[in-house]
This record gives sequence, structure tokens and C-alpha cells, in this order.
Amino acid sequence: MAANPATLPRLRVNADRLWNSLMRLAAIGATEKGGVRRLALTDLDRQGRDLVTGWLRDAGCTISVDAIGNVFARRPGRRDAPPVAVGSHIDTQPSGGKFDGNYGVLAGLEVLRTLDDAGIVTERPLTVAIWTNEEGTRFTPVMMGSGVYAGAFTLEHCLGQRDLDGVSVGDALAAIGYDGRATAPAFAAYFEPHIEQGPVLEREGIVVGAVEGALGQRWFDAVVTGQDAHAGPTPIEMRRDALLAAAELVLEVRRIAQAHPDYARGTVGQMRVSPNSRNVIPGRVDFTVDFRNARAETLDAMCADLQRSAADVARRHGVDVALTEVVHFPPCAFDPVLVGSIERLAAELGHSVRRLASGAGHDAVYVARTCPTAMIFVPCDGGISHNEIENARPEHLAAGADVLLHAMLEAAR
Amino acid sequence: MAANPATLPRLRVNADRLWNSLMRLAAIGATEKGGVRRLALTDLDRQGRDLVTGWLRDAGCTISVDAIGNVFARRPGRRDAPPVAVGSHIDTQPSGGKFDGNYGVLAGLEVLRTLDDAGIVTERPLTVAIWTNEEGTRFTPVMMGSGVYAGAFTLEHCLGQRDLDGVSVGDALAAIGYDGRATAPAFAAYFEPHIEQGPVLEREGIVVGAVEGALGQRWFDAVVTGQDAHAGPTPIEMRRDALLAAAELVLEVRRIAQAHPDYARGTVGQMRVSPNSRNVIPGRVDFTVDFRNARAETLDAMCADLQRSAADVARRHGVDVALTEVVHFPPCAFDPVLVGSIERLAAELGHSVRRLASGAGHDAVYVARTCPTAMIFVPCDGGISHNEIENARPEHLAAGADVLLHAMLEAAR
Repeated sequence: MAANPATLPRLRVNADRLWNSLMRLAAIGATEKGGVRRLALTDLDRQGRDLVTGWLRDAGCTISVDAIGNVFARRPGRRDAPPVAVGSHIDTQPSGGKFDGNYGVLAGLEVLRTLDDAGIVTERPLTVAIWTNEEGTRFTPVMMGSGVYAGAFTLEHCLGQRDLDGVSVGDALAAIGYDGRATAPAFAAYFEPHIEQGPVLEREGIVVGAVEGALGQRWFDAVVTGQDAHAGPTPIEMRRDALLAAAELVLEVRRIAQAHPDYARGTVGQMRVSPNSRNVIPGRVDFTVDFRNARAETLDAMCADLQRSAADVARRHGVDVALTEVVHFPPCAFDPVLVGSIERLAAELGHSVRRLASGAGHDAVYVARTCPTAMIFVPCDGGISHNEIENARPEHLAAGADVLLHAMLEAAR
Repeated sequence: MAANPATLPRLRVNADRLWNSLMRLAAIGATEKGGVRRLALTDLDRQGRDLVTGWLRDAGCTISVDAIGNVFARRPGRRDAPPVAVGSHIDTQPSGGKFDGNYGVLAGLEVLRTLDDAGIVTERPLTVAIWTNEEGTRFTPVMMGSGVYAGAFTLEHCLGQRDLDGVSVGDALAAIGYDGRATAPAFAAYFEPHIEQGPVLEREGIVVGAVEGALGQRWFDAVVTGQDAHAGPTPIEMRRDALLAAAELVLEVRRIAQAHPDYARGTVGQMRVSPNSRNVIPGRVDFTVDFRNARAETLDAMCADLQRSAADVARRHGVDVALTEVVHFPPCAFDPVLVGSIERLAAELGHSVRRLASGAGHDAVYVARTCPTAMIFVPCDGGISHNEIENARPEHLAAGADVLLHAMLEAAR
């Protein structure tokens, strides 16, 4: 049977089977509060990898593992051409949930099982990828496996990274038997379904997000230096209050985010006040700024705006404000053709759909450096993720997998 | 010789002798950075007390010690009437300076020495008081000795208070030999000279502050509860950012302080952000508010204004704001006649003078509950106190002692 979506009956994945796979994988490292703790390259990670690769073998795949432990499950096509791939990660945060990462891998598995059930062989091979250590909580950097795949980090650097106990990535990979020797395959296209990890789809009652790209990030450390002084004897107009200046800058970060287009975001997440005493005017405040935007030019404009605000606040309050950039990820635009396919297919399948941006990093951001790439978002409860209460609805997960199924079929023709 | 200032030659204290006394006392507990660490009821405190009471005895005083360790040095007058008193404390902050407290006691000593030199006997007796544990850093509450004297605390409560090592005030007093049995005398009037511990006099180039009273204080603990969320995936308009709400309230505290008369002050000195992670929108912020004002009605109006601001901020940001009052000291107005005398005498002695308020608490605030009271402020470098670099100029210290001398002479007629 030819994989021609125009003539195919509208195939659907098996929603129950997808859900059951997610629940079975979530049992490995399950926490009392209903979450999952399955850190990268631990024995629990091995158990998870063994379970999923077993399922993929059962679905007719050949498994290969590269030197950073990325797993590639290949389902043959009619032609020996670069495969159409789907992937994500199955390591979790220390207090993680059942869906972050796991959904992308198991949606890929469900697509293969659905094709098997329907007896469909695609022109191009299909591949399900499991990327090593996306979360980055045991070993840095985050998105390690996809980063090595895309050349963002060297293999040697990553293999030498150590956890808090001094165990290296290389030793941890060998210990769980995932220190492979395979050459990682190049992809014709890459898809990554994922829970949104944000509130947009749920708030708007939309089931499928066609992700246009990932926001660029510029992070700053800010230090405001004023003058400690007693709160009682020091009249307001004689103060050099570092917290007052910092508070104005917190509001400036929000103003800047609201004043700029292209999915602009601005957050002050950390703040430390010194000397942090009830009746002492703060002499120093350290805080962080996290700016995100889908366009590099707009992101740069936000940063320039903050620099102007900082200079103005410093002058008005008689304080020093120093901003040091500590992270600079450029924005990542996904493939417009694939994004358009996802949007169209979702509508054809009867699902509400909107375009949005990924505010967080994902393996897809690195893979996009190597091939046409796109992501499919589905809602999660309250937009909550990286939390044991992370949750998603079976029908939404199935809807995203249905879109994935047909997007892969189109790309694999 | 009669103590009649109208006919007296304008007596002056001995500025060098006053300075030398301050430096000799500062040698007990001297720190490497030029400050003093002489905590209440330690052996260093005993050494300080022994030195100063020795000087007072040499000046013809009778020493008595009450049950909380307050020292009263009495110089006889022509009449056996309630004495005119001067006092302060000689315990210091852990990283304290040479002048805070010590100046008030040694200015009193210098007045007695000056009268001795001039052969003056006053109508009323004069008393120099050394109050126990003003700083409150080893034992709480602060201003313990003057508080017991004025009936603000019970003796039993204070004797039972313990330091971090479990030593009680009662045991510490006995250990240094200052667990007295004398009944504390009632005063006809009380003066307390002190360094300003603020920047007003220095900034305005004024030498003497006639202190009208001490600001009332109302302190609050504020808790802002919003919702933690990932900084990346959460659009600005869907956030319930506790830090953003707290930042607006920090600015409101300043607006309120600027909008109210009567020496209004408002400070946010402490802040704690949760979870305090760079890329997580803060879900909770705890901070403190310290409002001060010379008039109870204005202080209450400031607090009501803050409550309205908190409700408004809570509504606009979709957060909860809870304000809990943790300290409430009413304002203290000093005796208008004595304040007027100080202002007039300073001018007659050729010193620049202005009225101001004490932003901080002092022993005089408690003593004012028992008799007509006033304070005399002199400038300190940069307004800095509770710090090893605390400093003051000999001529300013002498100017304050000269005003004290003549104010006591007037009151003791």
C-alpha cells in the first residue's frame, strides 16, 4: 500500500495504546506524588531505554546507539534514503512529570505501530530518536545528545563532564551499556511532538500548536550598588536605595517585554538583597534578567532598551547598575514548509490549531541546524511542567500523534 | 557660686578631655578596623563600666546600680530634689563604633568635670545614667535597661532573657558584678546627647540638632503569592508574577513616604524570592515594610495607604498580598520646653542648629515616659553608624556637650 495521504483513509493512532505506553514508562522512576524521577544515565534511565528500545524492536526497528548514547530506531522504507525522524528524550527532571520528552518518543513509537497495523511501508525509512540527557540536571550542558549530534558541543567535552559525585558521562554511559559506536544518521526531516509546557493552548482551548521556532534567549546578571544606611535616620531624599532602583528595573523588564513584538518575554527570576535587614536601606541588589524573542533583531532591541533603562535608573537613584550578559542563544526558526504542513494537517484532521513559539529549549532546536525541523505542541494542564503534577489529556496526546503520523507520511513520500 | 546661666560667663566643656575619654573607652573592645565590639554584660562591658564609674567617682559622684544593671552616678546639689539627668549606653553593636551611646555618657561626665573645674554646685542634683543593653544584639529586647526603668518591660522578663549560649541576663549581670539592689531615681529632667546616625546635619552643615521626638514605627511582613511558571513558555499577559507585584509595592512604599509629612519614612529592607531560579517566574515573594513618622495619625494614614496599594496590586496582578503587622511603636514627642531650650542655647553659644526627629530608637524614648526629656544630636561622618568606621569630629562633640552643659544648668536651677 502506498503512503499517499491524499488517498489514504484518514488513519488515526491508537490513543489508548499511546497512553498505556506513557504510563508504563512512567512507572520507571515513579514518585509518590505521581511524577517521575529518572535522571540521565542512571540505572532507571537504562531501564527506560531498555523498555522503549524493546518496544521499537518489536515494531520492526533496527536499533543503533552513537558515542554519546543517542538511540536511533530505524524502520526500513522502500528506498535507502535519509530517514524522516521523530524524537525527544526520556530522561526527566529530579521532580519531573510523565510527559516531558517521553511523549515525543512514544508518539513516534505509536506512529510506527499504527503504520504496522495498517501495513504501510513508506518510501523513506522512518527513525525514532532518543536523545541523551536533555534535562541537564545531572550533567551539563542541557540538550547534550542533540547538541553533540548537531555539532554544538564536541563529543570529547561531553564525555568528560562529571556529575556531583565525580562520575563522568563516558563512565555513566558504559555503566548502563549505552556507550555505542554507531554513526548517527542524517535526517531528511525531523519532528518533535511535546507538551507545550506553557498555558497558551489550554487557555485558548486549542489542541495543536504548530511551532514556528524557539525563542532566542539573552540572559543578564544585574548588580545594583547603592549605599547601606539606617532606615530610621535617613530621609527618603538622601537615600541611595539599591532595592528601589532594582524594583524599577523589574518593572522596566516587563514594560520592555510588553512593548516588543515577536513573542517577547522578560523575566526577573532571581534576586538577592544585601544586607537584607529589616531596618537597613539595601546597599546592593543582585538580580537576573531573562529576555526571549523569536527574532534576533527584536531581542537585541529589547537588550538595548534595558541598557538605556539601567542608565536612567542609575542616574536618578545615584546608584551603579552593572549588566553582564551570561547566556546568548540565538532564536531558531523551524522549517516553514513543515510548520505549514502541521498547521494544515491538524485542521484537516479536525483539530483546532494555532501557530506559536517554543519559549523553552528542546532537542529540536539543535537538530534544526542539520535538517528541516518542526515541533508539534499539545496542551498540558495549567501549563505546568518540570513538576510531578505535570499532566496531559489522552485525547490531546493522540491528536498530536495523529498530526505527527500524517506529517511523517507526507515527508516520507 | 550660683548656677545662673544668665549671669555665668559662657562656660565651655574641655573638648580635648571629652575626646580623650571617648578614645580611652573605645580602647576596650577595640577592633582592628577602628571600631568597637563591646557587647552588653560581657567582661568587656564590665571593663567599660568600671572605667567610666571610676571617672564618675573621681568627679565626686555616688554610684548606685539597680536590679537590671543600670548605673546612676549622682552629683549632689544644694537641694535634695529629683536630679537633672543625662545618660545613654556604653554597650556596642558587634561591629560598632566609638560614639554611639558612649558619647552621651561621656558628655555627661565632661559636664560634671567642667562644673567641678568651675566650682559650680547646682540647686538640683545631677545624675549620669548608663543604661543596660541598649543595642539588644546579645539579649533582646533592645533598650532593655531604660525599658525596665520606664516600666515598658518587667524586670523578671528581662532577667530571664538568654543569649545564644543560654546565659541569662540575670547570670550575666551577676558575673560582671552589676546585679545591683538600688532603687532607680526619678528624674526632674533627662537629656541624651547622641551622634545623629543619619545624614541630615552633615549634609546641611549644621552642628546641633534639637530633637523634637522619635519617630513612631509600624513594621509589616508582606507575602505576595502568585504562581511559579517557566519563564520561556509563559506569555507576559498570562503570568501571576509575585516579584513584579512586589516591585510595584516597593515603589509604593517610597511614594507613600514622599506623599506624607511629619518626617515620613518608608523602607523595604528585606526580600526573599521563591523559587529564586533564573528562568522561573517567581511564585512567592516575602518582604518587609518599615514605616516611620513623628505623628501617630500620619503614621496610620501611611499604613492605610499601603493597604489600599496592596489591594490594588493584588487585583491587577492576580496575586494575593498579605500584610501582617509585626512591630508598632508609637511616636514619642520630647518635652517642648527642653527642645526649645536646646535650640535657643545652641544659637546663644554660636552654633548652627535645626530641629529634627530621631529616626531610630534611643533610651530617651523610654525615659520620656517618666519625665521631661530631650535629645541633642551632633553630626557623624556620612551619617554612618552601627559600623566600625563610625566617626565624629571633636569640635562637634564638644558643641553638643556645651549645649548639654547649659541645658542641664538651666534645668537644675
